[in-house]
Amino acid sequence: MSVFTKIIKGELPCFKIFEDELTFAFLALDQVTLGHTLVIPKREINHWFDVPEFDYIQMQKNSQKIGRAVQKATGSPRVVTAVIGFEVPHCHLHLIPAWSIGDLNFGKAKRHPEGEMIRIQNEIVKALTTS
Amino acid sequence: MSVFTKIIKGELPCFKIFEDELTFAFLALDQVTLGHTLVIPKREINHWFDVPEFDYIQMQKNSQKIGRAVQKATGSPRVVTAVIGFEVPHCHLHLIPAWSIGDLNFGKAKRHPEGEMIRIQNEIVKALTTS
Repeated sequence: MSVFTKIIKGELPCFKIFEDELTFAFLALDQVTLGHTLVIPKREINHWFDVPEFDYIQMQKNSQKIGRAVQKATGSPRVVTAVIGFEVPHCHLHLIPAWSIGDLNFGKAKRHPEGEMIRIQNEIVKALTTS
Repeated sequence: MSVFTKIIKGELPCFKIFEDELTFAFLALDQVTLGHTLVIPKREINHWFDVPEFDYIQMQKNSQKIGRAVQKATGSPRVVTAVIGFEVPHCHLHLIPAWSIGDLNFGKAKRHPEGEMIRIQNEIVKALTTS
């Protein structure tokens, strides 16, 4: 079972942003920039193009809404997206608030104090539910 | 009019991979790794989350098929995807054949001889039409 399936099941904690029948979203543990969110299909599938089309489309529709909320919450000029997947074998779409192309740098990812994570989580969830 | 709209209209050349009513795909001029393909909505819209949902979903469905073809044509273990958008203000999804996380490095992007571009174009198109 992937670490993300454990998060979905509530066996591991996360800063949750969104959930529906097919999609789950939460703050990345290591934040490339503050507000960095992962959107995943609930089905544990490794490669993004192997996710069943119906589930993938649902994830992408939700990603547009969550992406707008991340931008609103962070004030970033853009939100970049990426699916890479060399680490956790469970498809995950990164949404990263970005001020320049240099912000898409996973080497910069770092932990933040719990208070900061809760604050940005609340801002994104608020932007998502009031949009 | 964006450089990509000019490509769609045939006013600029490209190594075309795929086209339908809403989506267009072609080899990136500067290839991060050989086989690097851009998938774009025909509508010229800057930010990925502002692309109308219907067009965006069509682009994503096509991306899954094109992603599988890029993997088949290149033999790469993964194909990573990213939408960044600081350069051309017309939404474009990168599909980049990747052997390690270090391959997602736009600093490595470079031109290839025309013969190599035609060869990989043909391989991807063949994989796409026989899948």
